[in-house]
Amino acid sequence: MFSKQQQKYVQSLQIKKYRQEHQRFLVEGAKSVQELLKSDLETELLLCTPKFYAENEKILKKISVEQIPQTELEKLGTLQSNDAALAVVKMRENVPLIADADEFALVLDDIRDPGNLGTILRIADWYGIKKVICSETTVDFYNPKVVSASMGSFTRIRVYYSEISKYFENFVKIINSNNSSKKVIIENIDKNNNIEIIGTFLDSENVHHFDFPSSGYIVLGNESNGIGEEVEKLITKKITIPRFGEAESLNVGIATAVVLDNLRRRE
Amino acid sequence: MFSKQQQKYVQSLQIKKYRQEHQRFLVEGAKSVQELLKSDLETELLLCTPKFYAENEKILKKISVEQIPQTELEKLGTLQSNDAALAVVKMRENVPLIADADEFALVLDDIRDPGNLGTILRIADWYGIKKVICSETTVDFYNPKVVSASMGSFTRIRVYYSEISKYFENFVKIINSNNSSKKVIIENIDKNNNIEIIGTFLDSENVHHFDFPSSGYIVLGNESNGIGEEVEKLITKKITIPRFGEAESLNVGIATAVVLDNLRRRE
Repeated sequence: MFSKQQQKYVQSLQIKKYRQEHQRFLVEGAKSVQELLKSDLETELLLCTPKFYAENEKILKKISVEQIPQTELEKLGTLQSNDAALAVVKMRENVPLIADADEFALVLDDIRDPGNLGTILRIADWYGIKKVICSETTVDFYNPKVVSASMGSFTRIRVYYSEISKYFENFVKIINSNNSSKKVIIENIDKNNNIEIIGTFLDSENVHHFDFPSSGYIVLGNESNGIGEEVEKLITKKITIPRFGEAESLNVGIATAVVLDNLRRRE
Repeated sequence: MFSKQQQKYVQSLQIKKYRQEHQRFLVEGAKSVQELLKSDLETELLLCTPKFYAENEKILKKISVEQIPQTELEKLGTLQSNDAALAVVKMRENVPLIADADEFALVLDDIRDPGNLGTILRIADWYGIKKVICSETTVDFYNPKVVSASMGSFTRIRVYYSEISKYFENFVKIINSNNSSKKVIIENIDKNNNIEIIGTFLDSENVHHFDFPSSGYIVLGNESNGIGEEVEKLITKKITIPRFGEAESLNVGIATAVVLDNLRRRE
């Protein structure tokens, strides 16, 4: 039986405050739940329709599942229509992430729209980016709309929330407190006294002719205002997506895809 | 005064049937209306808040404008919040379009989501694509959500709705019935007996190594099913956006941007 109290608990996870309190988040819909079950994320509670159970019996019979009608599922979650499943999942710890040698990480400075963040995670996952550092003003990674828009990529991307300038200031400390695999970068920093922090701006170097370094950070900025002044000071290389027509700007998800496509084509 | 009847007329344009009957569509919000007023589109009716009027007096005093409160504006249109303006605008005629020599046109096969179509128009406009051919199953170009998501690019992109296979079958007829500037392409077709119709598929030629022709058509397919069988038969070159990670697919707007960025970087 699914109690009133459990119902309230599940519904509360639609709100960031309660997600943080319980360190749990919601995963909804067929595609997202299927990806969840293939991942190493820890599922606390799984609710699904008899139809979804029948279609996914192989993967579901190993775990504890409660079958409930579609109408109940929709009452608990945020999706207007959900004839499949909903899970309560343990959030990952907010542990510092750094880009290893030969690796790029994304840095998101104040991305506000959950659809945009979800789309960025999906693109990062397509282009083999595994780590995303988010400013504390960036929308919550565990927001149900972010999870849904990521189309399953929320299971594969690691995220770390931090004030961006603090993140880079404390960089060496972070590296030192980490394991031995990070030594390559410590040496790299020691030798060159810099890490490459690449940001997209208007009227900078054409990304089509830009010579990407072998590792570093790619910064994307706020939907309306771009990269903030504080973070701009940290940028070591400014790039621009060239325009051939008349639109004023590109959406931040689109910009992410174009930059990552240009990064990968060099390899 | 703004009559009940006028109010009903404006509201009816939220629905495709009435847009087609009246050959009029709605343009809402500050950015879209400002772009509209810079364009050659014919505005039949312009309603705005006193605030928007004061901020845009220079461009507004040449035309007939009715000032109404924000609450009234929001009742008439589709935007949840609109403290700026709403216009009733004459639709362009659905006249056949072809890609001229040295030009590319987009072909959209069954794009259903208005946000995706609007985003594709904005991207096309950024990359200097001026013509879009849409299957009759593609969402209406004049849908308010398309107009809004295009961020003003609806004013600069020309659209032609047609059954795609018919469009290419009738191609020579279209060209012949058109003006002299199309002769270049007639000759081109006569000489090579083909036009280049490029489509995105899985497991085809890597777009990073693809040698784009100097003109032609780029086809994007439906959000779930990709390019349909009928249209696939017409494709002369199949390309693929290479994947470096684990996401299953890219959104159609993202795919459009990546393909057009690869097209333009050759120039």
